[in-house]
Order: sequence, then structure tokens, then C-alpha cells
Amino acid sequence: MTDLATRYRAYIDCLNARNWADLGRHVHDDVEHNERPLGLAGYRAMLEADVEAIPDLAFVIDLLVCEPPHLAARLAFTCTPKAEFLGLPFNGRTVSFSENVFYTYQEGKIRSVLSVIDKQAIERQL
Amino acid sequence: MTDLATRYRAYIDCLNARNWADLGRHVHDDVEHNERPLGLAGYRAMLEADVEAIPDLAFVIDLLVCEPPHLAARLAFTCTPKAEFLGLPFNGRTVSFSENVFYTYQEGKIRSVLSVIDKQAIERQL
Repeated sequence: MTDLATRYRAYIDCLNARNWADLGRHVHDDVEHNERPLGLAGYRAMLEADVEAIPDLAFVIDLLVCEPPHLAARLAFTCTPKAEFLGLPFNGRTVSFSENVFYTYQEGKIRSVLSVIDKQAIERQL
Repeated sequence: MTDLATRYRAYIDCLNARNWADLGRHVHDDVEHNERPLGLAGYRAMLEADVEAIPDLAFVIDLLVCEPPHLAARLAFTCTPKAEFLGLPFNGRTVSFSENVFYTYQEGKIRSVLSVIDKQAIERQL
């Protein structure tokens, strides 16, 4: 048994490597994101769209709080969206912001994601 | 010794009771909020301003993840800001949204708060 924090770090490594073929090792077939039942294919499509919109997207763990089956992470981003993101016009500007996100694990994989991105921090930089 | 989750629930009860005189039992003298060194007096002033702007503000714990000295909470709000809040015009409309927030405890009290409010969810309702 690998503990949840180690498992989560492997998921983040998978995202940063754009290793979509391995995503199913970390994410449950029936995954939900902000209460939308995306499933693994929809979740992968969401991530691929994020990376298409933000080619330099990198996930950095700022803080990890783990109490199985839940894990909460504060993620730090410094990145350069190509055009529009979250309905905001970036036009090549680099911004830094956080995402506070809760995960629920089931059968060793991410089953539910409840994420909030700090849009106010981004707006202050544009 | 009271555990951190119990301690945190007492803090939330204190906020919902507007019991500002007791805030110092839950919040450290040197508290920081989103990296601003507010101190207890500044933190209390922030809460009092929130309640002034949103008279029906009530804190409901949706999810709690506890790994001392850290605690992460997803808070659920359904409330009616009087006028403007987060730079958005409410004009008496009731909205529901979440706050994902990390706390660091020190000496049994909240020393650091890293909060993100789901502004996108609010914008979708206005």
C-alpha cells in the first residue's frame, strides 16, 4: 500500500509529464469534477484542453493535507495562457495564482475533485 | 487536549454567533490571512466588515480534512450581500458558493489562513 500523499504526488508528476496514457492509474473511471460526472475520458479531455490553452502549465504542490479518503492540496501556478482563460483575456501575459482543491479517493484513485481557482488573484495581475 | 477538528468547529460556531469577544480563543494574535499579517484585531475587523456587508452570512462546513498542524475546509455559503461584494454587484440577490480554505494552527489557534472563494460560481448566478 502506497500512502495517499505519495499516490497524489505521482498523479501530479503524471500531469506535468503530459502522460495522458497513464492517467487511468491515478483517476477513477467515474471521476467527477466540481460535481460534473466527467468520467476518465472527459477528465482527460479537460486536462488536454487546459494544456492546449496554457502550454507552459506546471502543477506545483504548495501545501498538502491528507486524511484518507480525502486529500486537500494548495497548488501554485505561474503560467502564460495563450489567449482567454476563465473568461479573462491574457494575450501572452504571465500570471501567478493558486488553486485550493479537495480530492476524494476511491479504490486508490481520484473519484471526486472540488476545485476553486483564485480568479481574484489573476484579475489583480491583468 | 481537544483535537483540531473539534477546535475548528468551535471557531465556526463562534463566527456564526458573531461572538467577536471570544475570537481570540480561536485565532492567534499574529494571524495572517492570504499572506497579509492582519493580527487578531485586523482579522476581527475583516469579519465584522463581511457581516456588515452580508447580514445573513452563515458558515457551513461541507468537508473537513485534518492533518495537524494543518486543516483544510470546504465551506458552503448561501447568502445575500447587501450591495457590492468581491467587486460584484449583488443588489439583494441570494447566491450560493463555496470557499476552499487552508488553516495552519499554532499554539492551538489559527495562525495562517489561505482562502479561495469560488468567484466563478457567483458570477454564473448574477
